[in-house]
Amino acid sequence: MAKINFEEKLTKFSDHWSPRVVAEMNDYQFKLVKLKGEFVWHNHVDTDEVFIVVKGSMGIEMEHETIMLGEGEMYVVAKGVMHRPFAEEECHVMLVEPQGVVNTGELEGDLTAENDVWV
Amino acid sequence: MAKINFEEKLTKFSDHWSPRVVAEMNDYQFKLVKLKGEFVWHNHVDTDEVFIVVKGSMGIEMEHETIMLGEGEMYVVAKGVMHRPFAEEECHVMLVEPQGVVNTGELEGDLTAENDVWV
Repeated sequence: MAKINFEEKLTKFSDHWSPRVVAEMNDYQFKLVKLKGEFVWHNHVDTDEVFIVVKGSMGIEMEHETIMLGEGEMYVVAKGVMHRPFAEEECHVMLVEPQGVVNTGELEGDLTAENDVWV
Repeated sequence: MAKINFEEKLTKFSDHWSPRVVAEMNDYQFKLVKLKGEFVWHNHVDTDEVFIVVKGSMGIEMEHETIMLGEGEMYVVAKGVMHRPFAEEECHVMLVEPQGVVNTGELEGDLTAENDVWV
Protein backbone atom coordinates (compact mmCIF):
# COMPACT_ATOMS: atom_id res chain seq x y z
CA MET A 1 0.00 0.00 0.00
CA ALA A 2 0.94 3.67 -0.37
CA LYS A 3 1.21 6.25 2.36
CA ILE A 4 -1.79 8.51 2.94
CA ASN A 5 -1.42 12.29 2.87
CA PHE A 6 -4.40 13.92 4.61
CA GLU A 7 -4.17 17.23 2.76
CA GLU A 8 -4.05 15.54 -0.62
CA LYS A 9 -7.03 13.30 0.22
CA LEU A 10 -9.00 16.32 1.45
CA THR A 11 -8.68 18.03 -1.95
CA LYS A 12 -10.66 15.16 -3.49
CA PHE A 13 -14.08 15.95 -2.03
CA SER A 14 -15.90 19.01 -0.77
CA ASP A 15 -19.25 17.89 0.65
CA HIS A 16 -19.94 18.02 4.36
CA TRP A 17 -20.83 15.19 6.76
CA SER A 18 -19.90 12.48 4.25
CA PRO A 19 -16.93 10.47 5.54
CA ARG A 20 -14.42 8.99 3.07
CA VAL A 21 -12.35 5.95 3.99
CA VAL A 22 -8.61 6.49 3.52
CA ALA A 23 -7.18 3.39 5.20
CA GLU A 24 -8.00 0.14 6.94
CA MET A 25 -6.20 -1.47 9.87
CA ASN A 26 -7.44 -4.98 10.68
CA ASP A 27 -11.26 -4.50 10.68
CA TYR A 28 -11.10 -0.79 11.52
CA GLN A 29 -11.34 2.15 9.15
CA PHE A 30 -9.73 5.59 9.12
CA LYS A 31 -12.01 8.16 7.48
CA LEU A 32 -11.64 11.83 6.61
CA VAL A 33 -14.70 14.06 6.78
CA LYS A 34 -15.44 17.76 6.35
CA LEU A 35 -17.87 19.22 8.88
CA LYS A 36 -19.77 22.46 8.71
CA GLY A 37 -22.95 23.40 10.54
CA GLU A 38 -24.85 21.10 12.86
CA PHE A 39 -25.17 17.35 12.53
CA VAL A 40 -28.03 15.28 13.96
CA TRP A 41 -28.18 13.74 17.41
CA HIS A 42 -27.27 10.06 17.14
CA ASN A 43 -25.34 7.26 18.77
CA HIS A 44 -23.49 4.08 17.86
CA VAL A 45 -24.74 1.26 20.05
CA ASP A 46 -21.95 -1.19 19.23
CA THR A 47 -18.80 0.89 19.24
CA ASP A 48 -16.79 3.82 20.54
CA GLU A 49 -15.96 6.47 17.94
CA VAL A 50 -12.77 8.53 17.66
CA PHE A 51 -12.63 12.14 16.41
CA ILE A 52 -9.22 13.64 15.60
CA VAL A 53 -9.20 17.25 14.37
CA VAL A 54 -6.88 17.68 11.39
CA LYS A 55 -7.77 21.33 10.64
CA GLY A 56 -10.10 23.91 12.18
CA SER A 57 -12.24 23.39 15.23
CA MET A 58 -15.44 21.56 16.13
CA GLY A 59 -17.66 20.70 19.03
CA ILE A 60 -19.32 17.53 20.22
CA GLU A 61 -22.50 18.16 22.15
CA MET A 62 -23.55 15.40 24.57
CA GLU A 63 -26.24 15.25 27.20
CA HIS A 64 -24.14 16.55 30.08
CA GLU A 65 -21.28 18.37 28.40
CA THR A 66 -20.00 19.85 25.19
CA ILE A 67 -16.41 19.12 24.17
CA MET A 68 -14.61 21.65 21.96
CA LEU A 69 -11.76 20.31 19.83
CA GLY A 70 -9.05 22.14 17.90
CA GLU A 71 -6.27 20.98 15.60
CA GLY A 72 -4.19 18.23 17.21
CA GLU A 73 -6.90 17.21 19.63
CA MET A 74 -8.94 14.03 19.84
CA TYR A 75 -11.94 12.70 21.71
CA VAL A 76 -13.46 9.25 22.09
CA VAL A 77 -17.27 9.20 22.13
CA ALA A 78 -18.12 6.14 24.18
CA LYS A 79 -20.34 3.39 22.81
CA GLY A 80 -24.01 4.25 23.06
CA VAL A 81 -23.56 7.89 24.05
CA MET A 82 -25.87 10.29 22.22
CA HIS A 83 -23.87 13.05 20.55
CA ARG A 84 -24.20 15.84 18.04
CA PRO A 85 -21.09 17.13 16.25
CA PHE A 86 -21.04 20.72 15.01
CA ALA A 87 -18.61 23.19 13.45
CA GLU A 88 -19.16 26.90 12.94
CA GLU A 89 -16.51 27.04 10.19
CA GLU A 90 -15.52 24.12 7.99
CA CYS A 91 -13.49 21.63 10.00
CA HIS A 92 -11.51 18.62 8.77
CA VAL A 93 -11.65 15.55 10.95
CA MET A 94 -10.31 12.01 11.02
CA LEU A 95 -12.73 9.39 12.31
CA VAL A 96 -11.61 5.96 13.48
CA GLU A 97 -14.19 3.22 13.89
CA PRO A 98 -14.91 -0.38 12.90
CA GLN A 99 -15.91 -1.23 9.33
CA GLY A 100 -19.63 -0.82 8.76
CA VAL A 101 -20.32 2.14 11.03
CA VAL A 102 -22.88 4.51 9.49
CA ASN A 103 -22.43 8.24 10.19
CA THR A 104 -25.88 8.75 11.68
CA GLY A 105 -25.71 5.58 13.78
CA GLU A 106 -29.12 4.22 14.70
CA LEU A 107 -30.94 7.08 13.03
CA GLU A 108 -31.48 7.14 9.29
CA GLY A 109 -32.21 10.50 7.70
CA ASP A 110 -31.22 13.18 5.21
CA LEU A 111 -27.69 13.30 6.56
CA THR A 112 -27.12 9.54 6.41
CA ALA A 113 -24.14 9.08 4.09
CA GLU A 114 -23.29 6.08 1.97
CA ASN A 115 -21.00 3.80 3.94
CA ASP A 116 -17.56 2.54 2.94
CA VAL A 117 -16.84 5.17 0.27
CA TRP A 118 -13.09 5.43 -0.33
CA VAL A 119 -11.14 8.41 -1.51
CA MET B 1 -13.49 11.33 29.64
CA ALA B 2 -11.56 14.46 28.71
CA LYS B 3 -10.30 15.48 25.31
CA ILE B 4 -6.70 14.67 24.44
CA ASN B 5 -4.34 17.40 23.28
CA PHE B 6 -1.34 15.85 21.52
CA GLU B 7 1.05 18.75 22.19
CA GLU B 8 0.22 18.78 25.88
CA LYS B 9 0.68 15.00 26.19
CA LEU B 10 4.00 15.22 24.35
CA THR B 11 5.42 17.62 26.95
CA LYS B 12 5.05 14.88 29.56
CA PHE B 13 7.81 12.56 28.39
CA SER B 14 11.04 12.89 26.49
CA ASP B 15 12.46 9.39 25.96
CA HIS B 16 12.54 7.84 22.52
CA TRP B 17 10.92 4.62 21.27
CA SER B 18 8.71 4.29 24.34
CA PRO B 19 5.03 4.65 23.37
CA ARG B 20 2.57 6.19 25.84
CA VAL B 21 -1.13 5.36 25.66
CA VAL B 22 -3.35 8.45 25.44
CA ALA B 23 -6.73 6.90 24.62
CA GLU B 24 -8.64 3.68 24.11
CA MET B 25 -11.40 2.95 21.63
CA ASN B 26 -13.04 -0.44 22.13
CA ASP B 27 -10.01 -2.77 22.49
CA TYR B 28 -7.68 -0.51 20.51
CA GLN B 29 -5.16 1.97 21.86
CA PHE B 30 -3.90 5.32 20.60
CA LYS B 31 -0.31 5.93 21.62
CA LEU B 32 2.09 8.84 21.25
CA VAL B 33 5.77 8.13 20.78
CA LYS B 34 8.92 10.15 20.13
CA LEU B 35 11.31 8.63 17.63
CA LYS B 36 14.94 9.45 17.00
CA GLY B 37 17.59 7.28 15.41
CA GLU B 38 17.05 3.75 14.20
CA PHE B 39 14.72 1.20 15.73
CA VAL B 40 15.15 -2.58 15.42
CA TRP B 41 13.72 -4.76 12.67
CA HIS B 42 10.58 -6.44 13.98
CA ASN B 43 7.05 -7.44 13.05
CA HIS B 44 3.64 -7.94 14.66
CA VAL B 45 2.30 -11.33 13.65
CA ASP B 46 -1.27 -10.72 14.82
CA THR B 47 -2.06 -7.18 13.75
CA ASP B 48 -1.63 -4.30 11.34
CA GLU B 49 -0.04 -1.19 12.84
CA VAL B 50 -0.84 2.45 12.04
CA PHE B 51 1.72 5.28 12.06
CA ILE B 52 0.44 8.88 11.91
CA VAL B 53 3.10 11.61 11.94
CA VAL B 54 2.13 14.45 14.29
CA LYS B 55 5.39 16.43 13.98
CA GLY B 56 8.61 16.00 12.02
CA SER B 57 9.38 13.23 9.60
CA MET B 58 10.27 9.55 9.75
CA GLY B 59 10.86 6.54 7.58
CA ILE B 60 9.69 2.95 7.68
CA GLU B 61 12.13 0.55 6.08
CA MET B 62 10.65 -2.71 4.82
CA GLU B 63 12.11 -5.52 2.74
CA HIS B 64 11.13 -4.11 -0.66
CA GLU B 65 10.59 -0.43 -0.03
CA THR B 66 11.13 2.43 2.38
CA ILE B 67 8.21 4.76 3.09
CA MET B 68 8.99 8.35 4.11
CA LEU B 69 6.30 10.11 6.17
CA GLY B 70 5.90 13.79 7.06
CA GLU B 71 3.42 15.68 9.22
CA GLY B 72 -0.17 14.83 8.30
CA GLU B 73 0.73 11.54 6.70
CA MET B 74 -0.04 7.99 7.77
CA TYR B 75 0.93 4.46 6.83
CA VAL B 76 -0.43 1.04 7.74
CA VAL B 77 2.22 -1.63 8.22
CA ALA B 78 0.44 -4.85 7.36
CA LYS B 79 0.29 -7.75 9.80
CA GLY B 80 3.46 -9.82 9.79
CA VAL B 81 5.53 -7.45 7.66
CA MET B 82 9.08 -6.92 8.93
CA HIS B 83 9.79 -3.21 9.37
CA ARG B 84 12.29 -0.84 10.90
CA PRO B 85 11.19 2.71 11.77
CA PHE B 86 13.82 5.47 11.80
CA ALA B 87 14.00 9.24 12.18
CA GLU B 88 17.03 11.44 11.55
CA GLU B 89 15.62 14.23 13.74
CA GLU B 90 13.17 13.72 16.60
CA CYS B 91 9.75 12.87 15.21
CA HIS B 92 6.41 12.68 17.07
CA VAL B 93 4.10 9.90 16.00
CA MET B 94 0.68 8.51 16.88
CA LEU B 95 0.43 4.72 16.81
CA VAL B 96 -2.89 2.90 16.62
CA GLU B 97 -3.01 -0.79 17.43
CA PRO B 98 -4.86 -3.33 19.59
CA GLN B 99 -4.27 -3.44 23.34
CA GLY B 100 -1.27 -5.58 24.25
CA VAL B 101 0.97 -4.86 21.28
CA VAL B 102 4.63 -4.60 22.33
CA ASN B 103 6.79 -2.08 20.45
CA THR B 104 9.40 -4.60 19.33
CA GLY B 105 6.82 -7.20 18.33
CA GLU B 106 8.17 -10.74 18.35
CA LEU B 107 11.67 -9.63 19.24
CA GLU B 108 12.58 -8.78 22.83
CA GLY B 109 15.64 -6.60 23.36
CA ASP B 110 17.12 -3.39 24.74
CA LEU B 111 14.51 -1.29 22.96
CA THR B 112 11.53 -3.30 24.20
CA ALA B 113 9.39 -0.80 26.13
CA GLU B 114 6.99 -1.49 28.95
CA ASN B 115 3.52 -2.01 27.51
CA ASP B 116 0.34 -0.12 28.41
CA VAL B 117 2.02 2.92 29.98
CA TRP B 118 -0.40 5.87 29.96
CA VAL B 119 0.44 9.53 29.89
